[in-house]
Amino acid sequence: MTLDFRSWAASALEDLRAKGPLIHHIANLVTLNDSANAVLSLGALPIMAHALEEVPHITKKAGALVLNTGTPTPESFQAMLAAGRCANDLGIPVILDPVGVGSSPLRREGVSSLLENLTLAAIRGNLAEIQFIVQGKGDLAGVEAKGDLDLTGRIALAREGARSLRTVLAITGSWDVVASSKQTFIVQNGHPLLRRVTGTGCMATSVLAAFLALEQGPLPAAAALAFYGLAGERAAQRAKGPGSLKTALFDELYNLAPKDAKECRVERRD
Amino acid sequence: MTLDFRSWAASALEDLRAKGPLIHHIANLVTLNDSANAVLSLGALPIMAHALEEVPHITKKAGALVLNTGTPTPESFQAMLAAGRCANDLGIPVILDPVGVGSSPLRREGVSSLLENLTLAAIRGNLAEIQFIVQGKGDLAGVEAKGDLDLTGRIALAREGARSLRTVLAITGSWDVVASSKQTFIVQNGHPLLRRVTGTGCMATSVLAAFLALEQGPLPAAAALAFYGLAGERAAQRAKGPGSLKTALFDELYNLAPKDAKECRVERRD
Amino acid sequence: MTLDFRSWAASALEDLRAKGPLIHHIANLVTLNDSANAVLSLGALPIMAHALEEVPHITKKAGALVLNTGTPTPESFQAMLAAGRCANDLGIPVILDPVGVGSSPLRREGVSSLLENLTLAAIRGNLAEIQFIVQGKGDLAGVEAKGDLDLTGRIALAREGARSLRTVLAITGSWDVVASSKQTFIVQNGHPLLRRVTGTGCMATSVLAAFLALEQGPLPAAAALAFYGLAGERAAQRAKGPGSLKTALFDELYNLAPKDAKECRVERRD
Repeated sequence: MTLDFRSWAASALEDLRAKGPLIHHIANLVTLNDSANAVLSLGALPIMAHALEEVPHITKKAGALVLNTGTPTPESFQAMLAAGRCANDLGIPVILDPVGVGSSPLRREGVSSLLENLTLAAIRGNLAEIQFIVQGKGDLAGVEAKGDLDLTGRIALAREGARSLRTVLAITGSWDVVASSKQTFIVQNGHPLLRRVTGTGCMATSVLAAFLALEQGPLPAAAALAFYGLAGERAAQRAKGPGSLKTALFDELYNLAPKDAKECRVERRD
Repeated sequence: MTLDFRSWAASALEDLRAKGPLIHHIANLVTLNDSANAVLSLGALPIMAHALEEVPHITKKAGALVLNTGTPTPESFQAMLAAGRCANDLGIPVILDPVGVGSSPLRREGVSSLLENLTLAAIRGNLAEIQFIVQGKGDLAGVEAKGDLDLTGRIALAREGARSLRTVLAITGSWDVVASSKQTFIVQNGHPLLRRVTGTGCMATSVLAAFLALEQGPLPAAAALAFYGLAGERAAQRAKGPGSLKTALFDELYNLAPKDAKECRVERRD
Repeated sequence: MTLDFRSWAASALEDLRAKGPLIHHIANLVTLNDSANAVLSLGALPIMAHALEEVPHITKKAGALVLNTGTPTPESFQAMLAAGRCANDLGIPVILDPVGVGSSPLRREGVSSLLENLTLAAIRGNLAEIQFIVQGKGDLAGVEAKGDLDLTGRIALAREGARSLRTVLAITGSWDVVASSKQTFIVQNGHPLLRRVTGTGCMATSVLAAFLALEQGPLPAAAALAFYGLAGERAAQRAKGPGSLKTALFDELYNLAPKDAKECRVERRD
């Protein structure tokens, strides 16, 4: 399947660049600049808008909607729900990034309400966040993952979550696992230094949303994470630490070409 | 006029560096860090403050006030109005950046209210934003411009807006057009890669405000955009993509010297 | 004492890297991304959370709490008070960064209320901010310091503040002064170009908090500022201006090693 995947991924990137979908983010205040730059660098268009008064007007023009719970308030959860319902009504894919979901009742209840009320095209999180969402547990230290689970365990978790939540579930880490109820992909692209830069998870979600704006499913999600991980690898080669890694990451997202799909290391596991 | 302009612009930059005016921003949450760094790099002082309870106290100490509608709420528009009225009472120039004005009723009505109630020293936007403000129309895709209009059309639009809104109107793009009711300038400095970095429009507005803090009118506005565009060109020469462009942009704003005015490509069109 | 200090500082950095304490920030919207990256680069874990509904839940898991008044609202002061009380109840150190304290009644009264109601492990500010807090005066131009006072004057001010406010007081500038009621340290590391990057003060506070999470007192505070200043010096050597300085600063925080303590220039003055 590798050959097929690569040719599919090359076309998907080409299509993304040609269409430049608008990605509406109700974003994390820590990383909204980073997500906007990731989307712009990749070749799509970001818009960040969070006021309840305007979110449906913005969402209805978007190709995808990202909901990020990194700096939540009761008002931001209301806005996420309103924007998400609008997106669901119009068939616009909604992607959830449940940042730090287990950290407080506000986040737990807010995310629960999003899961209950919205149809999600994908959820992307680190291991601890996805464990919390799927199994109600997880070792959360701030917004960074500390949990441990081997690849087999992660695959089982992703599949369980994909089935029970009826969505595409992406667990990112040293290897990314992407599962729907029918398919599972492993993505090996990436670099450990990305963990020392805030927002690299949020940016992965934004890149994922840009691909899902064109086509939904686990395959586009895996392609998005592979291209993003590849940009991260290349950035890490040029970097002297987390600061120059972040700068280079935007450069490499911009410089990704369809032919780079041959460096995407994606494997199907069914 | 070119020779005169360059000698005037050189003095203006020298003056800005000597006086370091304080620029109060009621800013966009996506780009407030970038605007603060642009102002600091250039040689002025930024302050970002948005709470209704404190904005007049901040504005009254400032050399200029920037109002940016990029992530608006009803409360932020209230604060903009209060700060703007304070600035008008004290003769402090107010510069409006109507980010994404056509995207939602909240932005449309908020910007309308600012236009009706405040005297503005300048408005800077992309083509779509200015078309919306001046003519009530425009093709808005998120906060990025998609509209198209040739240079003659942009000049006519800027002049029409400057007259009807009684302000200096700056349309930035591949060429910038700056008009008052009496004068028009074309600024050719800049680089297309700037469009792949979020906040490059907001930073242009911040730089413009720093120059208008010292002297109002279309000439200082054109000088500001020329110096900013020149810094962008130099940054682009060093850059490998949008990430390194942004990093280099702050360096080049800092490294601008009065003698660089000879590289400002500004033309008067009356 | 220099030899002792260096060996102590080397161990402290090693300990910080081994334990990776979680630092909860109720942060400034301008610099929250920078503070998060500084903490991550150094080897600790950041979490930014500001909603009154969740701050106590976040604080109770943290190793230290940072309160930054850079973009205040009445709600953010309420959240700071609630989080601070929770931290005080649990013995978690609270570090205050009173950004722009003299700029408005909102900041003045908000900071007063924090000083009256909370036990603070440390306060870090520029000269003008500390003068305002300790003596009720200071020449404040935005959030940047303009005041002037020689080293002897700064030492006297820091000691007076440390005694009257019963905390560790850190005045940062070309030389940093750190005082408790019993000890005073001078830190000579640092670089003047840091002043041309927004958030370098906020990041100093975040680094300080990461050290105080492990051990309180003026010695850890001085070690934190010395390591941070050293990273700044090294970054400045590589930089072509404020943009590349900021990028390099995160790299150098990441690359700091315990053995670098021998380049910490800290002096005790009793």
